[in-house]
Amino acid sequence: MNFVRNQWYVAAYGCEIERSLFGRTILGEPIVLYRTESGEVVALADRCVHRRYPLSESRLDGDTIVCGYHGFTYDRAGSCVFVPGQKRIPRTARVRSYPVVEQDSFVWVWIGSSSPSSAPPRAPWLADPGYTTVCGMEPLAARYELLVDNLLDLSHETYLHGGYIGTPEVASTPITTEVDEDRGVIYVSRHMADAACPPFYAKSTGIDGRITRWQDIEYHPPCLYLLHSRIAPAGVLPRDDGADPDGFHVEVVYAITPETEHSTHDFWAVARDFALADQGVSDFLAESNRTVVLQDVTALDILEKVTRAEPDGYQELSVNIDTGGLAARRILKRMASV
Amino acid sequence: MNFVRNQWYVAAYGCEIERSLFGRTILGEPIVLYRTESGEVVALADRCVHRRYPLSESRLDGDTIVCGYHGFTYDRAGSCVFVPGQKRIPRTARVRSYPVVEQDSFVWVWIGSSSPSSAPPRAPWLADPGYTTVCGMEPLAARYELLVDNLLDLSHETYLHGGYIGTPEVASTPITTEVDEDRGVIYVSRHMADAACPPFYAKSTGIDGRITRWQDIEYHPPCLYLLHSRIAPAGVLPRDDGADPDGFHVEVVYAITPETEHSTHDFWAVARDFALADQGVSDFLAESNRTVVLQDVTALDILEKVTRAEPDGYQELSVNIDTGGLAARRILKRMASV
Amino acid sequence: MNFVRNQWYVAAYGCEIERSLFGRTILGEPIVLYRTESGEVVALADRCVHRRYPLSESRLDGDTIVCGYHGFTYDRAGSCVFVPGQKRIPRTARVRSYPVVEQDSFVWVWIGSSSPSSAPPRAPWLADPGYTTVCGMEPLAARYELLVDNLLDLSHETYLHGGYIGTPEVASTPITTEVDEDRGVIYVSRHMADAACPPFYAKSTGIDGRITRWQDIEYHPPCLYLLHSRIAPAGVLPRDDGADPDGFHVEVVYAITPETEHSTHDFWAVARDFALADQGVSDFLAESNRTVVLQDVTALDILEKVTRAEPDGYQELSVNIDTGGLAARRILKRMASV
Repeated sequence: MNFVRNQWYVAAYGCEIERSLFGRTILGEPIVLYRTESGEVVALADRCVHRRYPLSESRLDGDTIVCGYHGFTYDRAGSCVFVPGQKRIPRTARVRSYPVVEQDSFVWVWIGSSSPSSAPPRAPWLADPGYTTVCGMEPLAARYELLVDNLLDLSHETYLHGGYIGTPEVASTPITTEVDEDRGVIYVSRHMADAACPPFYAKSTGIDGRITRWQDIEYHPPCLYLLHSRIAPAGVLPRDDGADPDGFHVEVVYAITPETEHSTHDFWAVARDFALADQGVSDFLAESNRTVVLQDVTALDILEKVTRAEPDGYQELSVNIDTGGLAARRILKRMASV
Repeated sequence: MNFVRNQWYVAAYGCEIERSLFGRTILGEPIVLYRTESGEVVALADRCVHRRYPLSESRLDGDTIVCGYHGFTYDRAGSCVFVPGQKRIPRTARVRSYPVVEQDSFVWVWIGSSSPSSAPPRAPWLADPGYTTVCGMEPLAARYELLVDNLLDLSHETYLHGGYIGTPEVASTPITTEVDEDRGVIYVSRHMADAACPPFYAKSTGIDGRITRWQDIEYHPPCLYLLHSRIAPAGVLPRDDGADPDGFHVEVVYAITPETEHSTHDFWAVARDFALADQGVSDFLAESNRTVVLQDVTALDILEKVTRAEPDGYQELSVNIDTGGLAARRILKRMASV
Repeated sequence: MNFVRNQWYVAAYGCEIERSLFGRTILGEPIVLYRTESGEVVALADRCVHRRYPLSESRLDGDTIVCGYHGFTYDRAGSCVFVPGQKRIPRTARVRSYPVVEQDSFVWVWIGSSSPSSAPPRAPWLADPGYTTVCGMEPLAARYELLVDNLLDLSHETYLHGGYIGTPEVASTPITTEVDEDRGVIYVSRHMADAACPPFYAKSTGIDGRITRWQDIEYHPPCLYLLHSRIAPAGVLPRDDGADPDGFHVEVVYAITPETEHSTHDFWAVARDFALADQGVSDFLAESNRTVVLQDVTALDILEKVTRAEPDGYQELSVNIDTGGLAARRILKRMASV
């Protein structure tokens, strides 16, 4: 079990949680979510205390859940308020309640035995009117570590995502990697001064020549991955004061939430600061990014099968491009051992 | 392995066994059944002694089975009577034969190492001309204990079977439970003096007001479950001499036959003493009861998955309604340990 | 693990391997095959050294494979010749290369840690202009030992393949078995002097009466099985000098290649020395033999499930017809223990 517990995880987009019962497994824990009459999100353990029937297969009655099997009823705090056939409610009749924060379009849930020691990390662009966002979630039949490896090393864009976001320069440009050991954040940067413009950016920005392309990754383990992507005509740089009116900025956000030891919820979002009202650009970026994510899903589902079939102690060969991924593995291992 | 061995189990309805080979697994034992030319049911181990090919995938020739792979041939006692390529038949060439009793429309088979120590329990209504019966069998992808739990506590009718057989009074009326320790029979009764009439009974009996409704369960572990159901207009009781001309009687019979550790043959039958020749009532009760059984199947298949995913030592919370189910678990455990 | 290693196995028909990447698992080892620009077949381990992505999911570029994930590139010897993002190629960056021999229409691959100690066994009819051959490969969801058992004892033709190749005489005629212990070859012969002619041979040869039918098996464990089948009108024998102008000769060839512990590649071919140019006969034999193979596949897939469900130490009963199969098991066990 390599899970990192006592952390915030994205359980859902806020728009997924409505006035009905919604089941999702996170780090192997079955959770039922719903929105109360006053609009807050509730997250409870998805098992009735009586005979462990899933509450997500039950009925929402006001702000209470009525178990679909024998009618045990729970309030929003997880306390049982009705037991069939008797007046007395046993003291131990309660299901676990999970801390919830709704922020930046995500529903974050704290998984662990301790109380939250911090707020969830931020991805402010997703709910910022200065940006337009497209997003989705794809189920991945692979352990989350394979997705972390994938996202920390973007040289695979050239081979797996050619024709969408990959060009030869991504694989051939060296990276710089930094780790903030105190905050546990990993930074991987690749700045291409003069690169081909892949269709993903050519069609959305309208640039038709070569570009200056910056990829600045910030990984906040375990769950939040941010890719600050800057595109501009080749040679166009931000001004000395930091202003960047001639650059196009895309904030690519992933939330990496383990479902089980061998499956992952792969949340993805693409926020841009240009063509804000252009539905054609939104549709194109949504379609293209989903295609790219599904290319990763296909490859990682294969790798999960390969990994499970390998004997223990299989030796990988790591090279320079893996520096960020290896740092991430090290930090995750440290966090898991706490 | 929680099986109770050295007991009678329902292997099939008599009408399922014809002049062809019929394979069914009971308590993990593969069995082939067929009817002889003179009409008796034979039950043999479903594995050829040679290379264990299933005899149920073979051919019936008179009263002998000819193995579909190499032609080893067995008589109705399970003795091999032909071996290909040679005259001599090895002494050990025989497959196990199971004791069979055909009774009350069921084919009972004795599973165990000992000889039958008693006759199978009775469900006489199923073959009684004073009753009309509808019946079926649904495969359950759940351990048999979950079905025992389900049937011993009918308060779930209110929540899982609302609109068919459940009304609020079922969950809210207390039960009485008795155990005949010597005979190993469990009795659970719920007598509702003034209850809503669920569609299942309203439509079949024609009663259109409130009812007196009695549910008297007799569970003969491990396999036979009887629910004596009495419905009458509210306040109408049997006479002092026991005669009950104004009551409607439905005998609901379940045979609970484990297939494997994690699957069960769920035989169900509904016998009534009214509207005997009314095909519309038969069709309605068959359709309704099958729907109710399939609601249970859906819920129990979910519970099986939940149960298998739980760590050992998971703590359930039991309340008053579980008294019958807990007694059944205790008796089954005692029988399994003999 | 009952695999016999350090042996030649048929990986594919030569015609399956073209100028594209072809993945196949043999003895549990994932292998990628392709044909070079000059026409030779290459077999490499199907896992990139970097993050073990399957090379068969990659791209062939000239005679090199470019990994579909990050672009690691391998030459035909398995040496890495390109690593993304850096100039230096680590010394250990190479994937295993398998010895290959293309012969008799088969691609043979040597599986094991040692170097090949011999040439692959021959099935010369398959590429001989004096014969016309039909062939195919069916995937078997059963361990290879069950197919060896099946092919070494043809008495099952009477029961499993009646109407195609089975007649009563096959099961009732005794066999002779010989084992060449030094060369490790098993011979099983059944000569029927006066037998019914099954449709497979009646329709292909045009004989319409009874036949003399010889079945001479040569099994070269682990992979190659040859059945020399001679059919002639009843009483017609080869001349004293061995010439046999009035006999019809069919060479039935199987290559038995374990895929995993519980699945097998079942290669089959039927070569004949008559009606060489008759497409109708070719179509009939291809269709009929494929049907026969699929009858075996169905039976053996069932037996695999049965075998896996049996407790260890299950006792089979062997008789005379099993002499060849038991000899094969003994030789395979000896080869596996080397």
